[in-house]
Amino acid sequence: MRHATGISDLGVEGLEKVLAQAIQWKQGPHPKHLVDKILGMVFFNPSLRTRASFEACMARGGGSSIVLEVGNGVWKLEDRAGAVMDGDRAEHIREAAPVLSRYVDVLAVRTFAGNTDDAEDHKDPVMNGFRNFATVPTLSMESAREHPCQGLADLMTARETFGTTKGLPVTLSWAPHIKPLPKAVPNSFLLTAAAAGCEVRVAHPKGFELQPEVQAQAEALAKEAGGSVAFTQDLDEAVKDSRVVYAKAWGPATGGPLGPEAVKAFPAWMTSPEIMAKAAADAIFMHCLPVRRNVEVADGVLDGPWSRVVDEAENRFHVQRALLQWLLEA
Amino acid sequence: MRHATGISDLGVEGLEKVLAQAIQWKQGPHPKHLVDKILGMVFFNPSLRTRASFEACMARGGGSSIVLEVGNGVWKLEDRAGAVMDGDRAEHIREAAPVLSRYVDVLAVRTFAGNTDDAEDHKDPVMNGFRNFATVPTLSMESAREHPCQGLADLMTARETFGTTKGLPVTLSWAPHIKPLPKAVPNSFLLTAAAAGCEVRVAHPKGFELQPEVQAQAEALAKEAGGSVAFTQDLDEAVKDSRVVYAKAWGPATGGPLGPEAVKAFPAWMTSPEIMAKAAADAIFMHCLPVRRNVEVADGVLDGPWSRVVDEAENRFHVQRALLQWLLEA
Amino acid sequence: MRHATGISDLGVEGLEKVLAQAIQWKQGPHPKHLVDKILGMVFFNPSLRTRASFEACMARGGGSSIVLEVGNGVWKLEDRAGAVMDGDRAEHIREAAPVLSRYVDVLAVRTFAGNTDDAEDHKDPVMNGFRNFATVPTLSMESAREHPCQGLADLMTARETFGTTKGLPVTLSWAPHIKPLPKAVPNSFLLTAAAAGCEVRVAHPKGFELQPEVQAQAEALAKEAGGSVAFTQDLDEAVKDSRVVYAKAWGPATGGPLGPEAVKAFPAWMTSPEIMAKAAADAIFMHCLPVRRNVEVADGVLDGPWSRVVDEAENRFHVQRALLQWLLEA
Repeated sequence: MRHATGISDLGVEGLEKVLAQAIQWKQGPHPKHLVDKILGMVFFNPSLRTRASFEACMARGGGSSIVLEVGNGVWKLEDRAGAVMDGDRAEHIREAAPVLSRYVDVLAVRTFAGNTDDAEDHKDPVMNGFRNFATVPTLSMESAREHPCQGLADLMTARETFGTTKGLPVTLSWAPHIKPLPKAVPNSFLLTAAAAGCEVRVAHPKGFELQPEVQAQAEALAKEAGGSVAFTQDLDEAVKDSRVVYAKAWGPATGGPLGPEAVKAFPAWMTSPEIMAKAAADAIFMHCLPVRRNVEVADGVLDGPWSRVVDEAENRFHVQRALLQWLLEA
Repeated sequence: MRHATGISDLGVEGLEKVLAQAIQWKQGPHPKHLVDKILGMVFFNPSLRTRASFEACMARGGGSSIVLEVGNGVWKLEDRAGAVMDGDRAEHIREAAPVLSRYVDVLAVRTFAGNTDDAEDHKDPVMNGFRNFATVPTLSMESAREHPCQGLADLMTARETFGTTKGLPVTLSWAPHIKPLPKAVPNSFLLTAAAAGCEVRVAHPKGFELQPEVQAQAEALAKEAGGSVAFTQDLDEAVKDSRVVYAKAWGPATGGPLGPEAVKAFPAWMTSPEIMAKAAADAIFMHCLPVRRNVEVADGVLDGPWSRVVDEAENRFHVQRALLQWLLEA
Repeated sequence: MRHATGISDLGVEGLEKVLAQAIQWKQGPHPKHLVDKILGMVFFNPSLRTRASFEACMARGGGSSIVLEVGNGVWKLEDRAGAVMDGDRAEHIREAAPVLSRYVDVLAVRTFAGNTDDAEDHKDPVMNGFRNFATVPTLSMESAREHPCQGLADLMTARETFGTTKGLPVTLSWAPHIKPLPKAVPNSFLLTAAAAGCEVRVAHPKGFELQPEVQAQAEALAKEAGGSVAFTQDLDEAVKDSRVVYAKAWGPATGGPLGPEAVKAFPAWMTSPEIMAKAAADAIFMHCLPVRRNVEVADGVLDGPWSRVVDEAENRFHVQRALLQWLLEA
């Protein structure tokens, strides 16, 4: 039985297979490949694109969806082994995951990082709880560690634009925000771009380093796929010749000198037309959305010729139905 | 590409077409006219009838629905151009509308009036934001200005009962309430009845005038359709010979002498059997629901022989599937 | 027109028919018996299993579901006749139930006990409001008085395991909890087991008696079905030779000496491997879920050889589609 809670479930081979299927299906009529299938979606956190695009995948494919929002019409869930459950969590994942598995064909989960303890987030307890106790394929709709569907949509967008991603120079640029956001999206862009063979450059102010384990995983994937990964605090240097500029806000590294109040302290990191002008002449701009205009990214970039953010969001739909196919065909 | 965010999108011709289709389809088995279609519904405000009836339209027609509740499992949305988005609105309609358009075939939006600034409400910024930035047909499920599906259901009910609405005397009667409610429903009853050729009488206490622009629009529609529009503060005079009494609470005109606390100051305006007895002998009673019993309308009216409120609510289903057809056939 | 808001709607004959259908359908492919049918679900309280299993029933059967959460995107509902509706309840069941009946084929309602007044709860005003004013079959997803779908799933699980439930010794064991929970689930296990001919033993500490009317109803059903019902405060005596141990927390009898703070005062009533060892050698353990581990039931029982809690939850799906069939075939 396959799961898809992180890039390591797919590997380079699975990634290539899913991207090829997604690009192929985008050209033709919607395949009815999900007839009689039910996707169960469990949200611990809000969503717009993820929920709508997965519901569209199921409906277009001939199947259906069940959406459950934990703590909002659904009990809060416990994930700790051996817990004496006398608090506000009324049900354990040890029951919820196998029970839901009896009703649906695939179980998708969204659970954001607590964002106060990188080591704890790295263990991804809720997502791994579902993965361990579910008896059907489990799919991440973003967890504390990764957002694999986003990474797939990002790389599909780059590949559509440039034909290939082998050796493609791409920059992941840290962006300012009013909150210290989770690292799942930057992790997944980095990991997926590395697995797709890109020349990946990650640029961020000092103190916003991604976790060492993720950096190491990206380097291993790049090596396997024939690409490279580099980290820098010099944004101008990073974007030079880049074909993709990918902006994303995330919080400081745990234990770093930066608190949440410092997150807006780097206004020069807001992606502007001036920054885009330093990239390759045919460079495109991407962002996972939602984006805070004129905080993370200037209006001029989002409304300008570089932006692929709407295509990128549409590609969530395409990669997700390819990923559902990959999960169910095993 | 067609939109349906107000009566002006339909005009007298579209109105007649949608009503005729709705009345015809009500007689037979459900047409499977929405196979493979997805309706995306975005709610900024609560709903019972609207949500359930639209979901039923899609299911009965062979299609499906995606329901998103903004601020309840979905990010809050920004609508202002050029905003520096450092507040609680995490996403701009400039992204949300085109992105959702990639997943669905029709985008329906509910967004109530702020009800503190008539001029601002009249601009209908959220509904018009979706309409401007969506790339699929946009449908109003009630906005700050109009509730076109309700107006269509109201006129369908009148036409079913009396065969024709040309020259039909109908009274829109202001009703007391504990809150200063939005004006979208009275606006839409007035505008749709005018466009259907009724002799429309609007009765309300002094200080509860509808916006001048809406009054002018209603007069123009009445002229085109061969009907008339009149405004009065004398309820007895208005209901005399009326075949339809339509009760609805709404808040005071901006800048008027009446604050919210005065809204209950007119108990004589609660529709009672005594008022219905002053109308035509075959008069029917309508209300869009939800209705506060014994505040807006007496039990004796709602449970009496005049009431068509449940048929009227059923007709939401019928006019909406006809409206979806009208949007998609263009 | 049939309803299913309590065991008395089914009777012994209906119960046997539904259980037989559920067990038969579990063996084969999903029957497409709900094509073009819509289930409307109205939740006044949270749910995980109930919502997911009913949505799965409709999807697997070829139909669809509409889910409405009262007070969460849907107006609060009034149930009292003659109410002057000037509070926070914006709509009356007298409108909501007949209106929803125009959109859907079956109306399912979840409304928990207020749990402060046993006599009021016993009248089940919300569930009976829907039942009285709906014009389509009404189904309980748990009300103040009963949870018939849970009782059916429980007895299906026992019958699957032991072949027959005639004369089967089963124990309903009160369990500790941090809150005084409603009595719908224990009521329904008692009533359904009695109607299925079991030898039912109900064990609880002094002060936690079930309502006299429910006890009397259970005794009448047991007499009709050839079983028996007994009540005891001696758990060891109850579980001796029992083939089923069914744990469930519920609050004290109204007017009893026990307040909510005393609910955890009986830790020896937590079902443990030691208690299971006193039951029959082939005894199974059941619980309706959600279960608070190490408060109501020890990890060793839930993770041990006795537990059927996941099968029992799966059987919610099977009995519910049989019950939908029973409602619609009449």
